[in-house]
Amino acid sequence: MSTRRDFLKTTALAGAGLAATSFMRAAEKAPIVAPQRKRTPSKDGRIRVGFIGCGFRSQEHFNNVLSFLDTRVVAICDISDFSLNMTKETFKKKGKELPKIYQGSEHEYENMLKNEEFDVVLIASPWEWHVPMSVAAMKAGVPYVGVEVSAANTMDECWDLVNTSEETGSQLMILENVCYRRDVMATLKMAREGLFGELTHCRCGYEHDLRAVKFNDGKSYSYVPGTELKMGPGAIGEAVWRTFHSIERNGDLYPTHGIGPVGNWLNINRGNRFVKLSSMATKSRGLHKFVVDNGGPNHPYADINFKLGDIVTTMIETINGETIIVTHDTNSPRPYSLGFRLQGTEGLWYNDGDTIYIEGKSKPHQWDKSADWLQKYDHTLWKKYGDAAQNAGHGGMDYIMMTDLFNAIRENKPVPLDCYDAAAWSAISALSEQSIANGGVSLDFPDFTRGKWINRKPHFALES
Amino acid sequence: MSTRRDFLKTTALAGAGLAATSFMRAAEKAPIVAPQRKRTPSKDGRIRVGFIGCGFRSQEHFNNVLSFLDTRVVAICDISDFSLNMTKETFKKKGKELPKIYQGSEHEYENMLKNEEFDVVLIASPWEWHVPMSVAAMKAGVPYVGVEVSAANTMDECWDLVNTSEETGSQLMILENVCYRRDVMATLKMAREGLFGELTHCRCGYEHDLRAVKFNDGKSYSYVPGTELKMGPGAIGEAVWRTFHSIERNGDLYPTHGIGPVGNWLNINRGNRFVKLSSMATKSRGLHKFVVDNGGPNHPYADINFKLGDIVTTMIETINGETIIVTHDTNSPRPYSLGFRLQGTEGLWYNDGDTIYIEGKSKPHQWDKSADWLQKYDHTLWKKYGDAAQNAGHGGMDYIMMTDLFNAIRENKPVPLDCYDAAAWSAISALSEQSIANGGVSLDFPDFTRGKWINRKPHFALES
Repeated sequence: MSTRRDFLKTTALAGAGLAATSFMRAAEKAPIVAPQRKRTPSKDGRIRVGFIGCGFRSQEHFNNVLSFLDTRVVAICDISDFSLNMTKETFKKKGKELPKIYQGSEHEYENMLKNEEFDVVLIASPWEWHVPMSVAAMKAGVPYVGVEVSAANTMDECWDLVNTSEETGSQLMILENVCYRRDVMATLKMAREGLFGELTHCRCGYEHDLRAVKFNDGKSYSYVPGTELKMGPGAIGEAVWRTFHSIERNGDLYPTHGIGPVGNWLNINRGNRFVKLSSMATKSRGLHKFVVDNGGPNHPYADINFKLGDIVTTMIETINGETIIVTHDTNSPRPYSLGFRLQGTEGLWYNDGDTIYIEGKSKPHQWDKSADWLQKYDHTLWKKYGDAAQNAGHGGMDYIMMTDLFNAIRENKPVPLDCYDAAAWSAISALSEQSIANGGVSLDFPDFTRGKWINRKPHFALES
Repeated sequence: MSTRRDFLKTTALAGAGLAATSFMRAAEKAPIVAPQRKRTPSKDGRIRVGFIGCGFRSQEHFNNVLSFLDTRVVAICDISDFSLNMTKETFKKKGKELPKIYQGSEHEYENMLKNEEFDVVLIASPWEWHVPMSVAAMKAGVPYVGVEVSAANTMDECWDLVNTSEETGSQLMILENVCYRRDVMATLKMAREGLFGELTHCRCGYEHDLRAVKFNDGKSYSYVPGTELKMGPGAIGEAVWRTFHSIERNGDLYPTHGIGPVGNWLNINRGNRFVKLSSMATKSRGLHKFVVDNGGPNHPYADINFKLGDIVTTMIETINGETIIVTHDTNSPRPYSLGFRLQGTEGLWYNDGDTIYIEGKSKPHQWDKSADWLQKYDHTLWKKYGDAAQNAGHGGMDYIMMTDLFNAIRENKPVPLDCYDAAAWSAISALSEQSIANGGVSLDFPDFTRGKWINRKPHFALES
């Protein structure tokens, strides 16, 4: 843990040109480093935080960030009164001074970035705004930018994140909270300690029945049977915008909760990389059925042709010879699962059913329940911050993630999950769409690191 | 149940030219019907059975077939003294008269087929002999031929099975016992009764640690640590031949235990068909590691380059818009699983973890344990024959399968799982090899029914 004094020193360094830190040594390798906007050090020594997007997701970020005593939320931005009112309530409940609010136009965030000075800006907006906002924040000289998942929708957007981070020297963090899930971190520790042997195969995905999130009555976040069925401006939450991605796109729209942890297990972009991908989608039935079941066959949405197949599966091959299956299903009735599997030459973990088998340690041909293994290999971050995390949302993984990001900021270090992770993981969306549109064709994965993966070392959540 | 008298009648019909039965009505549609070898009716009215291949697998078939009082094993054939001695023991233990034995040359089965008259011949030989033996049996005029899994290794072999069955009018049954597994049949019943809604996605595979079966000391079927490590002529069981497929081939070498049940759930070849496939394989590590771990780094097998990737995954798309994931893993340490998933617009079953969720019936977002559902939807075949099956091997599914096949023979009906099933399911092997060899390319699936899938109706294990 850095002391307050350390923090002041490193923050000062950051403001003064960001020299002589590991963070900048990484950035110096970038082909082009754009001139930084002049930044002044934080006057009260606190980390100056900005938020773009103040919806449901950001409320959890507020909870966590406001609990860090060395931070100050300087300004926030949103276009929705609903979201801003919700945010005001959150600040009030926490007894915190309300930050400056930017609202009105969709591009008001640009004014916020121009007018204010931030050490970090966190972005939790509709998917289509992630990259424009991240790029703008980096170009405005914000040294740390955190963007929600998925980070990017198209291949060009993936490259925009990488190019802008390299050019500006700003650190882009993909806010992939599942990388910090307690079981995911324990199995990462087990993998690093060789329990599973040489890794060969992983599975993951996002199997989450979001039908009642894609439609609501504009009052309740989740659709309540019997109420009106809306999407777009009349709705709230993700029903305002996310549903349109199900109408227009057929692919794995939300790969990172699954592929993030897998990326860490397999050291993607750090000695390994994705090389090939192919995807297939089932027919699209779930959303139409949901509309008809709840709104009747004459509901105006019953004529919509939802492009998104109910279940999209993607196979990925890595340059080190592992394969990965990624699943996307947000249209089917089912219990939630990220469906992790982590397998190697000496054992494997199944998330569904929660079982582990380790050759020579488990009874031959018999599963162990995971619990004992996961407890034994509990990750340092959870041992250290687990108690504080218990009070936070999403099983505490959001708290651990924010703590890890803010520790990087305090110590002026590279972000735990960077622009290459954001690009490689999010690229599955655009590539799967292309593969499906072309009959499941196998596509080459671009190397967003442009060869740097060969020498880059594992970095995420290392235990010293 | 047919009476003995019914059986005599239908057997007589079969012997006399096989007219006026549903079985022959199906065969009449075939483009060419070759002249049948003249067959005489069974003198004692019993079903005359022949066996080609008398190894470990056939011992379970002997157990079941010898328990049917209206059958008589006429002749058996094998080249291995070990297998024939094991078989003699089995007959002795059952108190049954030893049948005529054909042995000596690899082609001795041809003499057996020429010399003897059979109502059914069952083939359980190394994979590379399945098709030549099946084709020879059909061409010899045997009306029912049962072949073990996988049925065929190449695309040509798949077509050979289809063409020969169509040309000769002989019924080819693929002996896919997992189609008769109790949970698989219960979920088939659930699917047919609409519990899962419209089906969208299935998963299956063969994840069975066979390392200790691919090598042994020539005495014990499973490798015993500390003993000599052999394959080929010095070994016994599958180590004699199966291991060479792991050296020479990279693909899903054994798809039918998984895809068979899925084929029935999705009505493949009967209103539906496979249209596309692509496959990826992991690096190959498990077998080399096993050799080194048990035989040391200087063991002669340590230099072998095993082509078979440890885990092969295949994605399949059907013409009705479902997708399927098939897994093959016989090289990794792990508990056995066929990894079934059966999913539709209203619910799903997971084999791993054994959970079911049915919308509107299960508690929202919560899994039910499968047991109650599976018991409630227990299939008629199991209700009827379950007690008798309890004493048989493989959880009784072999007994149920043989009963179903022999009931078809008794009633002169089409086999439950026919040449089109054998071809379409087994084709995954050759197609996955092609896909992997070409970087995961997506391949078109041939239509082995030549358009008949459009009008063919579901047939397997129908409950009236």
